[in-house]
Amino acid sequence: MNSFGTLYRLSIFGESHGPAVGITVDGCPAGINLSADDFSSDIERRKGGIQKGTTPRTEADIPVFLSGVFNGKTTGAPLTIIFENSNTRSSDYEKQKDIPRPGHADFVASQKFGGYEDYRGGGHFSGRLTVCLVAAGVIAKKLLSVYGEINCQATLIEAGAEKDIEAGLQKAIDAKDSIGGIVECRVNGLPIGLGEPFFNSLESLISHAVFAIPAIRGIEFGTGFAAASMFGSDHNDALEDKSGKTRTNHAGGVVGGLTNGNELVFRVAVKPTSSTPKEQHSLNIETGKMEDFSVKGRHDLCIALRVPVVLEAVTACVLADMLLQSQSIKRIV
Amino acid sequence: MNSFGTLYRLSIFGESHGPAVGITVDGCPAGINLSADDFSSDIERRKGGIQKGTTPRTEADIPVFLSGVFNGKTTGAPLTIIFENSNTRSSDYEKQKDIPRPGHADFVASQKFGGYEDYRGGGHFSGRLTVCLVAAGVIAKKLLSVYGEINCQATLIEAGAEKDIEAGLQKAIDAKDSIGGIVECRVNGLPIGLGEPFFNSLESLISHAVFAIPAIRGIEFGTGFAAASMFGSDHNDALEDKSGKTRTNHAGGVVGGLTNGNELVFRVAVKPTSSTPKEQHSLNIETGKMEDFSVKGRHDLCIALRVPVVLEAVTACVLADMLLQSQSIKRIV
Amino acid sequence: MNSFGTLYRLSIFGESHGPAVGITVDGCPAGINLSADDFSSDIERRKGGIQKGTTPRTEADIPVFLSGVFNGKTTGAPLTIIFENSNTRSSDYEKQKDIPRPGHADFVASQKFGGYEDYRGGGHFSGRLTVCLVAAGVIAKKLLSVYGEINCQATLIEAGAEKDIEAGLQKAIDAKDSIGGIVECRVNGLPIGLGEPFFNSLESLISHAVFAIPAIRGIEFGTGFAAASMFGSDHNDALEDKSGKTRTNHAGGVVGGLTNGNELVFRVAVKPTSSTPKEQHSLNIETGKMEDFSVKGRHDLCIALRVPVVLEAVTACVLADMLLQSQSIKRIV
Amino acid sequence: MNSFGTLYRLSIFGESHGPAVGITVDGCPAGINLSADDFSSDIERRKGGIQKGTTPRTEADIPVFLSGVFNGKTTGAPLTIIFENSNTRSSDYEKQKDIPRPGHADFVASQKFGGYEDYRGGGHFSGRLTVCLVAAGVIAKKLLSVYGEINCQATLIEAGAEKDIEAGLQKAIDAKDSIGGIVECRVNGLPIGLGEPFFNSLESLISHAVFAIPAIRGIEFGTGFAAASMFGSDHNDALEDKSGKTRTNHAGGVVGGLTNGNELVFRVAVKPTSSTPKEQHSLNIETGKMEDFSVKGRHDLCIALRVPVVLEAVTACVLADMLLQSQSIKRIV
Repeated sequence: MNSFGTLYRLSIFGESHGPAVGITVDGCPAGINLSADDFSSDIERRKGGIQKGTTPRTEADIPVFLSGVFNGKTTGAPLTIIFENSNTRSSDYEKQKDIPRPGHADFVASQKFGGYEDYRGGGHFSGRLTVCLVAAGVIAKKLLSVYGEINCQATLIEAGAEKDIEAGLQKAIDAKDSIGGIVECRVNGLPIGLGEPFFNSLESLISHAVFAIPAIRGIEFGTGFAAASMFGSDHNDALEDKSGKTRTNHAGGVVGGLTNGNELVFRVAVKPTSSTPKEQHSLNIETGKMEDFSVKGRHDLCIALRVPVVLEAVTACVLADMLLQSQSIKRIV
Repeated sequence: MNSFGTLYRLSIFGESHGPAVGITVDGCPAGINLSADDFSSDIERRKGGIQKGTTPRTEADIPVFLSGVFNGKTTGAPLTIIFENSNTRSSDYEKQKDIPRPGHADFVASQKFGGYEDYRGGGHFSGRLTVCLVAAGVIAKKLLSVYGEINCQATLIEAGAEKDIEAGLQKAIDAKDSIGGIVECRVNGLPIGLGEPFFNSLESLISHAVFAIPAIRGIEFGTGFAAASMFGSDHNDALEDKSGKTRTNHAGGVVGGLTNGNELVFRVAVKPTSSTPKEQHSLNIETGKMEDFSVKGRHDLCIALRVPVVLEAVTACVLADMLLQSQSIKRIV
Repeated sequence: MNSFGTLYRLSIFGESHGPAVGITVDGCPAGINLSADDFSSDIERRKGGIQKGTTPRTEADIPVFLSGVFNGKTTGAPLTIIFENSNTRSSDYEKQKDIPRPGHADFVASQKFGGYEDYRGGGHFSGRLTVCLVAAGVIAKKLLSVYGEINCQATLIEAGAEKDIEAGLQKAIDAKDSIGGIVECRVNGLPIGLGEPFFNSLESLISHAVFAIPAIRGIEFGTGFAAASMFGSDHNDALEDKSGKTRTNHAGGVVGGLTNGNELVFRVAVKPTSSTPKEQHSLNIETGKMEDFSVKGRHDLCIALRVPVVLEAVTACVLADMLLQSQSIKRIV
Repeated sequence: MNSFGTLYRLSIFGESHGPAVGITVDGCPAGINLSADDFSSDIERRKGGIQKGTTPRTEADIPVFLSGVFNGKTTGAPLTIIFENSNTRSSDYEKQKDIPRPGHADFVASQKFGGYEDYRGGGHFSGRLTVCLVAAGVIAKKLLSVYGEINCQATLIEAGAEKDIEAGLQKAIDAKDSIGGIVECRVNGLPIGLGEPFFNSLESLISHAVFAIPAIRGIEFGTGFAAASMFGSDHNDALEDKSGKTRTNHAGGVVGGLTNGNELVFRVAVKPTSSTPKEQHSLNIETGKMEDFSVKGRHDLCIALRVPVVLEAVTACVLADMLLQSQSIKRIV
């Protein structure tokens, strides 16, 4: 199932080397200004080819609106955006068909879909589809701004075990190997009470969306794993005033599954890019023998570099959904 | 929204000091043996009152079947189980109404629900409701066993920053403060291919369910956050044979959002119990002044002690749902 | 799956001869006054034992709140109501186990659930569960009233092919046979624009809910089936003023899947009660032979008599959900 | 919300005069042969321009696969099909902006979406989008065939109150007015037990999908509205043998919300095309005065002519979903 959301609902489709990747956003209210230009900045942030450590594959990545936009504004109908795949080199990928790339979905996809999957460039499992998430995020961010000064910002705070990102990337280049990283997301300006007590806790929905991003291996809110080593009296955030502001923010802005009016803070762990330039040793499923091989194709040394804007996007989508839902409740109470 | 699942669907309800807490499991196939005895062991594991560091509040916790069970077997109709709340002392909680307990949902719940929430003992936000998750997990585990030798086991691997759990608990007792912990869950025997590429990745669904458990602050799969510091060539798990077995298991049994046939491994961070015996300092929302106060009532020093069986339960529920879904696909391919 | 709704969500459970039937309403806003008394009138309307043609089985039908109500008001948490089954005579039903009752779910239920279903009194398929729908409807009606003067009224307009209901019932009594009927539902005061263009058209959602009521065989909106025989120029409702009022109401208040501000009007066909007092002839699945038999137990001659309040209930639930959803949209536009 | 389905899930998008209309089918198993040719026959049946009484607007209606198909087979990933809108004449529609067309969604859409809706040719409300439903139906029918000899056939059985379709159409032509009709759908070869007891009864899901088709005003199963006039002893279908075959089929193949192994039979009422060639009289919302006017543009005299293939399509989609779900249950029982 490739859908997500209750009122702000996403449905993603496409393969890395198919004609296009795309996303349908259903539930976006009518009357929001929207043009291709609105997407440039975030799409640029996601793109490879610029920063040290990102892939030289460059796509034009111009959003094409198939529906839901009229006279430069959202119409309230389902909004479908596609991105054409122009810059594909399938030949790179043919060669690895016999050797499922370690860390990739090649083998499990083949098992799950009986060999019928589009394996070119990872097919539907490709990071290419995150451009669609970014697009949905652009719209979601616009929606957030209707509800107030809500600012959603994600940053790469560690690469290759280095707080100094440049140094981390250089380490990867020197080692001719890929590296991982940690991305932190902070959201200011949220009202109190977004989320639900149990299954739709804020953390449940954020993490659900976050783990749709390829290469994410963990998520923690506020103090996160470090909280496991703290005393309760140190971890508890004392309330400071009736606005809900707390003296500390170990909770990362969420208590009992609900936003508490403080900054929402969470971090995700991004694994090193599976497609490392290093020679690897794995099973050739045709011959049944272990083989040395190198992954061809154009890949990022540090995929974490491209994660921040995608992380912001899925976060904004979840929050947009919650804000839409919160409207209905408010009227009664 | 307090529902979760696609084919194996949960719907939870109840408050800590209301007449009962309960859960409806919809989608459980007919013909599975089920009696109250099946629940004893897991419910016992969750209970306080036994281990050092757990609350002296003890409930009989006898599952009452309202529907879905007939002649000792599931019927295929929605299965509702309730647990009566017999051992409640609301008077303990009245006193703190003016001072929202730090780390608790008191304040945000009041903001979200306009003061109409049942605040006694945390109301619907109470950890008391996890007994319902455990009950749903018992049924889910039975369902897993129909699909093969699937073993789901969670363990507290760290308490109060100590690998030695007893030492960690003693630290809490000595400090008269609450502590957190880390719980690890391992599942063996899963087939390849459970999960979906994007929004319903295995990690998405597991984490969605896991963050429904109160006090969880983070989750990581396989090597998790440590993966962010590794090189790709070290992190990648080489395929060893056609069964999908890999030489290492840094992925924790999930690649591309799908199980890969290796052991599923993930860990969660549990924060220290918010209700610490230590004196705290926080806002009295009636007087508008900061006050010293102590949380009354019966509470666990280390809530993480009770998490393993709940973690197993939600994991088993997610996996049961995925296994049910996987049946439909297999027929065609 | 026994759940329904997006923001006002129902989850039903129970069997005719189990300990209780019940329903969880999730998504009901906090702060709505609610007591057992609020249910009396609608539950009374649904009850048998009073009107000519209804079953002598009488249940106390006192709603028991398991959760979601505190100090006489809704809390915003899931609201579970159960009705205990006190007045059951399972012995009546044992006898027909070998002869699946024509028109009933006995045979198909047994096939679907492998014989594990609770067959007593129809089990989970029983009309007994409609008391839960009525309960959810009582809450939904309260919710509607928050949004304005919305009046939802269903009436039996035909019984046994007679517009004169008493005459129709007498016909059934004279013939010692069961009869069907037609129930019409009218809702005034709805705003324009509830519903969605395609899959969640107002008609889609209303009919989805309506066919959850046992014995319903058809539904038509506005002129309904008669519209198929009209000319377009006669059927079209001319707009009369900017409020949306139309000169005629052939559309029954819904155009393009959306309410149009006029009275919502639809009718449902109710089949004759399957449990007729008449002797029947059907297969004994044990002997494989056709047999004459009579259905024992207490049954209604005209189940349609009890449908109006149930029809109002599911209609109110659907409309409550739509009104909650409409709030989120309005804020933006 | 423009999504529908549990395991075989549809998400529709597009406007009549936008760049394209399309649909995403999520949950279609991998390995099913699929080419553009498979769609020709059903798309041809839906097209106007051929039969007396249908619109001269003709679209090439060639399905373009954006995703989910590889080497002529489904991949198991979301399958998106679009149909480009080439043959549009928006100028026809500009003129009626001030006079909302009676029977159309013009006025309510404008109210709901604040005037931001794409009003050209009905926009997202257009019958044009039913080509997407037909496409999803083609795939669903292929899926049905995997489960056995399941035949789904819909026929126009009445047009303009005439059983003789040609005579009915001639009546419309003579009257220079549009007419409605009745379409019957029959499905053979279904297994026993598809559907669920309450909210997901077969009738609930079929009718939910059916009312997504524009112009449908009613639906009835089996004997339908006529059942309301029958005695129970006449309406009940006696079981004839252990296969579930009944002597009569007044139930139309569904009992207790489940298929009973007999032919599934239901009928829908289609209203006369709202865009009649006749002069109409309605409100000019700019001037606030009633005016005479004629609807320009190319329209069908009897839209019911095009409904059968669309009705088959949504029916096949619902049944495909149910068959996929039924697989998971069977394994256990």
